[in-house]
Amino acid sequence: MFHHQKETAYFCKPDRPDPIYARKLQELIGGQWGEMSVMTAYLFQGWNCRGPAKYKDMLLDIGTEEIGHVEMLATMVARLLESSPVEAQEHAASNPAVGAILGGSRIEDAILTGMDPQHFIVSGLGATPNDSNGFPFTARYVVASGNMLADFRYNVAAESQGRMQACRLYEMTQDRGVRDMLHFNIARDTMHQNQWLAAIEQLKLDGLEDTLCPGNFPQELEKHDAAYTFLNHSRGTESMEGRWASGPSMDGRGQFTYIEDVPALGDAPVLGMIDPRVHGTSPAPQQPVSGTAD
Amino acid sequence: MFHHQKETAYFCKPDRPDPIYARKLQELIGGQWGEMSVMTAYLFQGWNCRGPAKYKDMLLDIGTEEIGHVEMLATMVARLLESSPVEAQEHAASNPAVGAILGGSRIEDAILTGMDPQHFIVSGLGATPNDSNGFPFTARYVVASGNMLADFRYNVAAESQGRMQACRLYEMTQDRGVRDMLHFNIARDTMHQNQWLAAIEQLKLDGLEDTLCPGNFPQELEKHDAAYTFLNHSRGTESMEGRWASGPSMDGRGQFTYIEDVPALGDAPVLGMIDPRVHGTSPAPQQPVSGTAD
Amino acid sequence: MFHHQKETAYFCKPDRPDPIYARKLQELIGGQWGEMSVMTAYLFQGWNCRGPAKYKDMLLDIGTEEIGHVEMLATMVARLLESSPVEAQEHAASNPAVGAILGGSRIEDAILTGMDPQHFIVSGLGATPNDSNGFPFTARYVVASGNMLADFRYNVAAESQGRMQACRLYEMTQDRGVRDMLHFNIARDTMHQNQWLAAIEQLKLDGLEDTLCPGNFPQELEKHDAAYTFLNHSRGTESMEGRWASGPSMDGRGQFTYIEDVPALGDAPVLGMIDPRVHGTSPAPQQPVSGTAD
Amino acid sequence: MFHHQKETAYFCKPDRPDPIYARKLQELIGGQWGEMSVMTAYLFQGWNCRGPAKYKDMLLDIGTEEIGHVEMLATMVARLLESSPVEAQEHAASNPAVGAILGGSRIEDAILTGMDPQHFIVSGLGATPNDSNGFPFTARYVVASGNMLADFRYNVAAESQGRMQACRLYEMTQDRGVRDMLHFNIARDTMHQNQWLAAIEQLKLDGLEDTLCPGNFPQELEKHDAAYTFLNHSRGTESMEGRWASGPSMDGRGQFTYIEDVPALGDAPVLGMIDPRVHGTSPAPQQPVSGTAD
Amino acid sequence: MFHHQKETAYFCKPDRPDPIYARKLQELIGGQWGEMSVMTAYLFQGWNCRGPAKYKDMLLDIGTEEIGHVEMLATMVARLLESSPVEAQEHAASNPAVGAILGGSRIEDAILTGMDPQHFIVSGLGATPNDSNGFPFTARYVVASGNMLADFRYNVAAESQGRMQACRLYEMTQDRGVRDMLHFNIARDTMHQNQWLAAIEQLKLDGLEDTLCPGNFPQELEKHDAAYTFLNHSRGTESMEGRWASGPSMDGRGQFTYIEDVPALGDAPVLGMIDPRVHGTSPAPQQPVSGTAD
Amino acid sequence: MFHHQKETAYFCKPDRPDPIYARKLQELIGGQWGEMSVMTAYLFQGWNCRGPAKYKDMLLDIGTEEIGHVEMLATMVARLLESSPVEAQEHAASNPAVGAILGGSRIEDAILTGMDPQHFIVSGLGATPNDSNGFPFTARYVVASGNMLADFRYNVAAESQGRMQACRLYEMTQDRGVRDMLHFNIARDTMHQNQWLAAIEQLKLDGLEDTLCPGNFPQELEKHDAAYTFLNHSRGTESMEGRWASGPSMDGRGQFTYIEDVPALGDAPVLGMIDPRVHGTSPAPQQPVSGTAD
Repeated sequence: MFHHQKETAYFCKPDRPDPIYARKLQELIGGQWGEMSVMTAYLFQGWNCRGPAKYKDMLLDIGTEEIGHVEMLATMVARLLESSPVEAQEHAASNPAVGAILGGSRIEDAILTGMDPQHFIVSGLGATPNDSNGFPFTARYVVASGNMLADFRYNVAAESQGRMQACRLYEMTQDRGVRDMLHFNIARDTMHQNQWLAAIEQLKLDGLEDTLCPGNFPQELEKHDAAYTFLNHSRGTESMEGRWASGPSMDGRGQFTYIEDVPALGDAPVLGMIDPRVHGTSPAPQQPVSGTAD
Repeated sequence: MFHHQKETAYFCKPDRPDPIYARKLQELIGGQWGEMSVMTAYLFQGWNCRGPAKYKDMLLDIGTEEIGHVEMLATMVARLLESSPVEAQEHAASNPAVGAILGGSRIEDAILTGMDPQHFIVSGLGATPNDSNGFPFTARYVVASGNMLADFRYNVAAESQGRMQACRLYEMTQDRGVRDMLHFNIARDTMHQNQWLAAIEQLKLDGLEDTLCPGNFPQELEKHDAAYTFLNHSRGTESMEGRWASGPSMDGRGQFTYIEDVPALGDAPVLGMIDPRVHGTSPAPQQPVSGTAD
Repeated sequence: MFHHQKETAYFCKPDRPDPIYARKLQELIGGQWGEMSVMTAYLFQGWNCRGPAKYKDMLLDIGTEEIGHVEMLATMVARLLESSPVEAQEHAASNPAVGAILGGSRIEDAILTGMDPQHFIVSGLGATPNDSNGFPFTARYVVASGNMLADFRYNVAAESQGRMQACRLYEMTQDRGVRDMLHFNIARDTMHQNQWLAAIEQLKLDGLEDTLCPGNFPQELEKHDAAYTFLNHSRGTESMEGRWASGPSMDGRGQFTYIEDVPALGDAPVLGMIDPRVHGTSPAPQQPVSGTAD
Repeated sequence: MFHHQKETAYFCKPDRPDPIYARKLQELIGGQWGEMSVMTAYLFQGWNCRGPAKYKDMLLDIGTEEIGHVEMLATMVARLLESSPVEAQEHAASNPAVGAILGGSRIEDAILTGMDPQHFIVSGLGATPNDSNGFPFTARYVVASGNMLADFRYNVAAESQGRMQACRLYEMTQDRGVRDMLHFNIARDTMHQNQWLAAIEQLKLDGLEDTLCPGNFPQELEKHDAAYTFLNHSRGTESMEGRWASGPSMDGRGQFTYIEDVPALGDAPVLGMIDPRVHGTSPAPQQPVSGTAD
Repeated sequence: MFHHQKETAYFCKPDRPDPIYARKLQELIGGQWGEMSVMTAYLFQGWNCRGPAKYKDMLLDIGTEEIGHVEMLATMVARLLESSPVEAQEHAASNPAVGAILGGSRIEDAILTGMDPQHFIVSGLGATPNDSNGFPFTARYVVASGNMLADFRYNVAAESQGRMQACRLYEMTQDRGVRDMLHFNIARDTMHQNQWLAAIEQLKLDGLEDTLCPGNFPQELEKHDAAYTFLNHSRGTESMEGRWASGPSMDGRGQFTYIEDVPALGDAPVLGMIDPRVHGTSPAPQQPVSGTAD
Repeated sequence: MFHHQKETAYFCKPDRPDPIYARKLQELIGGQWGEMSVMTAYLFQGWNCRGPAKYKDMLLDIGTEEIGHVEMLATMVARLLESSPVEAQEHAASNPAVGAILGGSRIEDAILTGMDPQHFIVSGLGATPNDSNGFPFTARYVVASGNMLADFRYNVAAESQGRMQACRLYEMTQDRGVRDMLHFNIARDTMHQNQWLAAIEQLKLDGLEDTLCPGNFPQELEKHDAAYTFLNHSRGTESMEGRWASGPSMDGRGQFTYIEDVPALGDAPVLGMIDPRVHGTSPAPQQPVSGTAD
């Protein structure tokens, strides 16, 4: 069960409206790596957690924190939108330097269109659960597999992508209020990257998982000669120069080998015949055929 | 540019048809963590790569390998479907033990429905680019960010989720042909997890990235006191027991601290007024208003 | 900012596992009218609210409550899945009555397939943010328009659809633990329908909105003769018998009129010419044309 | 069965082309609350209708009317696009005031980009079944539940959101032809809001439904003490001031009560063990395990 | 503008309910090649048509016919669902042969699950605008490009896929009422394939288009040696045996040539440097960098 | 199995960066008719092919070629993006002519927004698997039906739409490098249109398919009088003037007939009763009802 506190986790007030930046900031709300993604992922990972209690608690703590991050960003977007496009249109109409150029399309229209049109038409100058192209958040971004090593690795990736996007958005504005908030967000992403790396270490300390995921599939069932070989699928061997091509494997269980000319181990497949009532194309001409008529 | 070799990377022939298992195996083709996802991710990461040549070559080598994995799985699915549902229906009709039960719905229908109906109606007993629920592959699964640390971490996660799903699918069949193929696939996933972990190490060896991603944002701009603190968003402190709550941070730049009672650092937001022509709800009653009528 | 309490809002423990029912219950989590939809809608309506404080607070109170409802349902689904399909498969293999019927597809497979295959392959016997067909929650279900009358009407609809779906799911199980939880959920839906109807009344009491939405567009700009007429678009006049065809309109501003033979008020459109370089089909033959060659 | 009349329901001719406005107007065609949504919803509600004939007829009358509204808007968009972006590009090239500014990106490009690029590349200056961000209409917007009270409430919401969006689009243009059409559209939305409110009244007059939806679930099965209580999920009680917090409930069957400190009625969930062959993370270390090898 | 006639285009009444077949038949309503797709495509092609009047009229005639086909199929589905799953569940409960098998999952559940669960939970035993896997119709299936040759070719494909799916669905039922309706649908698909092929001939007769689409791009701008060569991208030359590898090209403007060893005409791409503030990975180590701090 | 060659199929280097054109070019990568669509379609058609070997080989040859086309376009997009928006922003800041106009939104922002914001925030100046509106490639664009006539007709349509879009994109740029690449792409589309038309002829030469698709459904089962009649669904008979309205049908098996007044052959449908526990709306008032309470 959850409780709301009216104060936000951190300040989220821009110095001035900027509807075009508002559109960009939507990426951090409803994008592939936005706060809705990590919020939903961590909560479902927590609710589904069958491991020791400290993991479930930790997952729900951070999932709950992320709800508050969506709140901060949504509030910021709503404030960035506080200059009305209707006002802007009037302002432009009174400016002799910006007249009609191309069949009814004017510069101020271009500027207004730089904003997400749905910020006016659909949400009435509020935040939306979409990304910077107006594409809606989808639960297909979310991961909760029941295997914590697999999921924590995804979480590390999510916080890496998320921090990088926040840094990029930081570069695109000079607004001190926005940057102040991002100083906080980027710091939390720093913590969260560290946190998931620590959680992976904790899984090892607890003996629950090791390097290879999942850890409890009997490795002797694998094709051994395929498990530690790099397959060079091109002419030229630049790819031989990396750590992945030689030396001990990262799980300590094999030696990396580099195969320069990759053999095909299978044969050229020829599919079998099927019932003519599938009405597909067959190797030879077919007679008309159907189930018995009524 | 690409070339095709008619032999497959490994054998992909089941002992016998199994249309219900064919549906399940679709998860490895068009699912969130299926071969189409990793194939598309690695190829775009390679095509967009601005780093040293060995990375671009390595990315395109493995991306090319994955196209062949989609081929193997698609061929396997097409063969698992080689028993026609039309034949099955006739077989059932001649079996006195399976009569009509519920208003026209019969057991054999249930079995036929256990398969993906689109495997008959849409693809005519061929593989589809969908997952095990018939949901289509979407490029929103794909990641290519321009930052290799962020992407390689995603790749580690993808190979972890993928190997886990292959192991789960292994448990759900006794077919020796299917299992033989999975012995190969699981081994390649073992290699690929090791490979991406090695690639992350290589990035560090080359001085291109360190633990924190991205590495070139000036950390002194972050809110320092938020960068290494675990925020306990619940009553009860089970989450204090993990590696993430104390000790040096994983990036070696801070000490984890545990905040039991998380303060809200912001204030309770009150949004500003907007133009009444947005036709939203305002704090006080509004008069009818519109742009000047024509 | 949000806080988590480890106890759930109400009990969510089934008497026994039922993986097929688990799939159905997913509709209430990630479906069009599931708890993720209302949770996200109410939170964004609250974060974007520019009206009096009592509305913002109320919206965020109920939005926060709904996060806890997702938690209850996710926990219930995870418990309904606690019988492993691997065990089920073995159990079936030892049962002489259930042998192979159709080319490798057995009854027990059909039963296992009755469950969502992704509950095993993808989520490892945990809840997913999807509906009962495995289709992911999408933010396109969510509404937050900035106009509270429009949104509260949507909320009434959402709680009506949601309660109806919960009642239908109630009919499909005899499990006492599941039904106990649904007694609670259905009661909350009763409250929430009443709540949104009360909130609409409150908007009128506060003078913020009346019957017609939005309330502040000057109605004299509308085509008057189209604003209160029912247009019969078919032969036969059964539709004349309803309240919508005669009597005072619900907004008290007009009289319903029934137009039996609907006239077309426009003319037959003929579109204009466009540049041949659009490479569309034109009314007359075109010569090859392009921008100047390089 | 349906018939087409070549004249449109109302005039749909702009004074002059405006490709940027054409993009915005797409919201009313293929958006969440566009004409395709209500058209599809009303038609499916009609086709699925099991209630008295007057409802089925009324639903199909208005559904048929809405097809004509899609026609009007599509025609309007095609005409707003009749200035070619190729011409615009040439016009700009001859204008000394608009030279290259930023690495090949020119102002006129920005203006051209203000339009939906797919209006040129994909539809060749015709309307598309998408919204103002190019997101396609999806049937997930559509509601037809078999319960007319639930659906009519959704219809009221749809006409409220739709009229509000039409009013917003009205504010964003001065084109007399466009505004003339919107005078008609907004009037029809006025009628349709009234119509669905009247239809809800009719359901009550006919004894088919009352306030609470659905009406035929035995209310004594609900948890009574949860059915009429407002749960305050935050500190601070602004939400106590509304009609939803005290007084008789809107269905006349209870009294609203305000719970300031919401208790958790459930307990802290601990999930059970599952088969290790699910390859999830368990409470304690696992040994390698799999189904019997082949 | 459109009008509705209460009688359907043809009979649509099954002999008896069959909820599992109802699910399959959904493919013809909301699937990629279902009636909603062709209806929407033909209507938008008609509304956007800038060619001679006979094409626009023809497009809208057939588009209007298709609305009636959706109506027939939706009605058929609603009738196929008229046996309630609640009744089925009770019937099964009284049958000693069908007891609990696997942790609460029973055969009758499997049968009930063979139906689309949303047919009960969401649509209340009515048709939905989805395909046979419950995936919603999306406007991304729709094509209206402004070029009639391109679109009519798509229409030929759509009617070919559609007739094939109808034939497959015909094979999967013995119900005489369903088959009677399909006799009509399949015949209309026969007409419509012929119709679009005739329309392509008409475009040639009118001099509007020829074989190559679009017809008005100056072919001398193309790389000539790439315009009529088959590129063999594999070892082995089975592909040399087809009509596409030799002889005059179908547009009569060239000779097919077969290139056995395809040369790469480009060079190996190396991408350029970008600004370090993009926070991507660069060829050499980077210093921390950002916009000026506030 | 596949192999990669480091050289690209053709040159893909623009004369200069143009981030706005980069966005438009995305349509050819991830759009409905982009290279990812045809690549995936041809590969799956090849992998699923049950016809003679020359077809399977041909399909995989062209499918493999298309992977290389995605590579060319992705490389081109990455190069078109090589001017950083951060630099652009600084450049603009030093230009006195471009000051703030509207509440924080400046002309240079508009220009920057003319590019796809995700090209900066998400992909770090690399190509994405999306279309020109940022909508992701979806496998729902893909067709592989098992019937080669149906699929080859789709392929003809795809290459027609694709060539047309490439021509349109050609008109929107003067960049010689981009146009050089398009000269090649358009030529390949010329070949591929010819190739699929030739493949359809080959199917006839081989006796595998004829005009009507599928060819092996017994046509005597169809309603004969519906198979060759054009149904005029409107008043006015412009549609009578086309080849589709009279003369021999294209399959040579019938005569086109024009029906000016289309009769409805079915009756007005009335749906049957269903179980009240579905909680739908029924023809008459219902009593509260539910399954037996626990």
